[in-house]
Amino acid sequence: MYSFTRPSAWFSTFQKLRLRSSPLPQSTKAQLRNYANYPKPPWPPIRGGLERNTVWAPKTRIAVGIVFIGAIIYSMITEEPAKLDGTTQAERDTLTKRESGVTGNSPMRLQVEDFVKLKQKEIIAALEEIDGTKFRIDAWNRDNGGGGISGVLQNGKVFEKAGVNVSVVYGKLPQPAIQAMRVNHKAIDPNIESLDFFAAGLSLVLHPINPMAPTVHMNIRYFETMDENGKPNTWWFGGGTDLTPSYLFDEDAVHFHKTLKDACDNHDKNYYPRFKKWCDKYFSNKHRGETRGIGGVFFDDLDEEEKDKENTFAFVQSVANSFLPSYLPILTKRKDLTFSEKEREWQQIRRGRYVEFNLVHDRGTSFGLNTPNARVESILMSLPATASWKYMHEPEKGSREQRLVDVLREPKEWV
Amino acid sequence: MYSFTRPSAWFSTFQKLRLRSSPLPQSTKAQLRNYANYPKPPWPPIRGGLERNTVWAPKTRIAVGIVFIGAIIYSMITEEPAKLDGTTQAERDTLTKRESGVTGNSPMRLQVEDFVKLKQKEIIAALEEIDGTKFRIDAWNRDNGGGGISGVLQNGKVFEKAGVNVSVVYGKLPQPAIQAMRVNHKAIDPNIESLDFFAAGLSLVLHPINPMAPTVHMNIRYFETMDENGKPNTWWFGGGTDLTPSYLFDEDAVHFHKTLKDACDNHDKNYYPRFKKWCDKYFSNKHRGETRGIGGVFFDDLDEEEKDKENTFAFVQSVANSFLPSYLPILTKRKDLTFSEKEREWQQIRRGRYVEFNLVHDRGTSFGLNTPNARVESILMSLPATASWKYMHEPEKGSREQRLVDVLREPKEWV
Repeated sequence: MYSFTRPSAWFSTFQKLRLRSSPLPQSTKAQLRNYANYPKPPWPPIRGGLERNTVWAPKTRIAVGIVFIGAIIYSMITEEPAKLDGTTQAERDTLTKRESGVTGNSPMRLQVEDFVKLKQKEIIAALEEIDGTKFRIDAWNRDNGGGGISGVLQNGKVFEKAGVNVSVVYGKLPQPAIQAMRVNHKAIDPNIESLDFFAAGLSLVLHPINPMAPTVHMNIRYFETMDENGKPNTWWFGGGTDLTPSYLFDEDAVHFHKTLKDACDNHDKNYYPRFKKWCDKYFSNKHRGETRGIGGVFFDDLDEEEKDKENTFAFVQSVANSFLPSYLPILTKRKDLTFSEKEREWQQIRRGRYVEFNLVHDRGTSFGLNTPNARVESILMSLPATASWKYMHEPEKGSREQRLVDVLREPKEWV
Repeated sequence: MYSFTRPSAWFSTFQKLRLRSSPLPQSTKAQLRNYANYPKPPWPPIRGGLERNTVWAPKTRIAVGIVFIGAIIYSMITEEPAKLDGTTQAERDTLTKRESGVTGNSPMRLQVEDFVKLKQKEIIAALEEIDGTKFRIDAWNRDNGGGGISGVLQNGKVFEKAGVNVSVVYGKLPQPAIQAMRVNHKAIDPNIESLDFFAAGLSLVLHPINPMAPTVHMNIRYFETMDENGKPNTWWFGGGTDLTPSYLFDEDAVHFHKTLKDACDNHDKNYYPRFKKWCDKYFSNKHRGETRGIGGVFFDDLDEEEKDKENTFAFVQSVANSFLPSYLPILTKRKDLTFSEKEREWQQIRRGRYVEFNLVHDRGTSFGLNTPNARVESILMSLPATASWKYMHEPEKGSREQRLVDVLREPKEWV
């Protein structure tokens, strides 16, 4: 599934971007791997035709909507793409990029790809500066077009684990996926046999060492279907960001939400209240009756019924651009606070809850893990370096730990 | 959903059993809690009638087949049971137990309940003796009959975390669950509106501190449906046990499997090869292409088409009885071996994989966590106290760590 192409267009793009500002030391130079050599996990057993069709379709939609960003390669839904004059859309796009570069007049998919790569570089550079540790960069290409870049920092001075991933996928949707997508995107023609698509996204999760410094997640994604000439058909954007503290500082929550609200308000006054609510609903450990963290924003399926493509892209860019200003001031304030062994233990318990959400409820993660030939390490880079589970652990009444749990049980309005 | 009944029939049974051999110190006395006061998690959103019906039914079957043992209370499938002369089957059974005790002539459900409670007591007593630490015991009753006893030991001298749970459920299956069950149990009348059922099980997971001592899991379960007079209709047994080492000692694997094979062979020469294979297939982290551990046995749906009830119960008892002989000699040999920090780290990574299996693939766990009012702490007692995830961690070639992974990728025949 993965091809080892060296020098890879992907990798060299990243290297170029990177070398412009922060040359890589020898020890952290990107390591390329040939994933074709990885053992292929067996396909999960099919429990009956009916179930497969009905379950698979909504899952596909969700996955396409939420997950692929984690550098998941959907071999299941990415059959060989259509070839026009013997070339694939991915090949034609590569040619366009090489010959004309990417401008505001380029097809949206090229603008998004360009943006997420630049953003990844910018965020990684900022995090490396704070931590004083370089990210490990793994880049790879897909046979059928596209690829991914995973940036991961482990055992840093500030971050226990930090992952910043980009992925781009060219593929083909079969009938059940098309039917499922029509639920939210009526413009998709229900009668065609299969449909070329493009997907690109940026996804990050940062777990700081200090229990006073919160974990954070941010993600943006773009999806489009194309006709056989590469002309975009249906498209939509999705994304979000949420903050997961172990110890709640109200001023941090206010700052995080206020930064997001400002970013939203510049585009639509309804966005923040709507997407804040959506975030509390999505990032919820339903089995515990508590949210994963103190929220942020979450949105999906923003398409032409909402606003035009350019305005929506501008909004999504604002969300991504607001990430560093929303998080870095909090991190800077908290990363060097003193903490006790007991506070570290509480952080480990909260990390256990983070693992529970990602493995049990995040539909994308579980879909990804059930997809053959997925790049598991990129999907699971979101998990903390360490986590713990204590039977019947309950915070002391009136404690800071209890205060956090109270807020997670009843999400607050912060701005 | 949970009622606070004190003195509870359940609890007092356990206390009696317990006090016979090992009186509880004041500090570890059972703590009863009123789960009715727990916040109710919001019901997961229903994504459409069709999906709900088709997905829900197989999940119900699986859950009834595999999971409820973890003290999950299936409020979803346990509506108010039928009352005969104003009494429920649970009440009539309680009366029967009180008046006549439980003998080899009692209904199977009473014999199984009796057996799992005795076995729980015996296993807990053996583990307490090895560890030198008492288990915390939580017992509770269900409104509609039945209840559970969770026994958990944390931060012991030998065990980092150990859970030994019993649960008994009286409930009523609605139509979709009945339809789903008929797939494996044709004797179920497809035309009735709903069906009373009984389920009981014993489930344990032990995580020792020493990385040289393996984690182990064992579980047995019994399920029956009843007509309105309490006469058993369909029934089946399920269960299994599997060993999950971080460091593989071949002699341990051989001992574990040989003990199980002997237990199986006494009943049916085909059982061990069949259930060993089933175990490797079920306890598999498909997304990583490796099994959870070095296997053991796993079986489900053993009903009248297989053997009669008494013989199958005898077999299931043999599996439960073989648990201590299969595991304790291994634990005794390994629990005090010296180990390095690096070996402890490897154990933490393996525990991460254990978490992945339980949260992603164990259908029962995820079903349980998505069931409203489930006792989450009892379901998740199976998770280790600590676990870790390292991006792109790979054992050194030729190392002991690599040897384990090789075996997990291609399960061996041990006897």
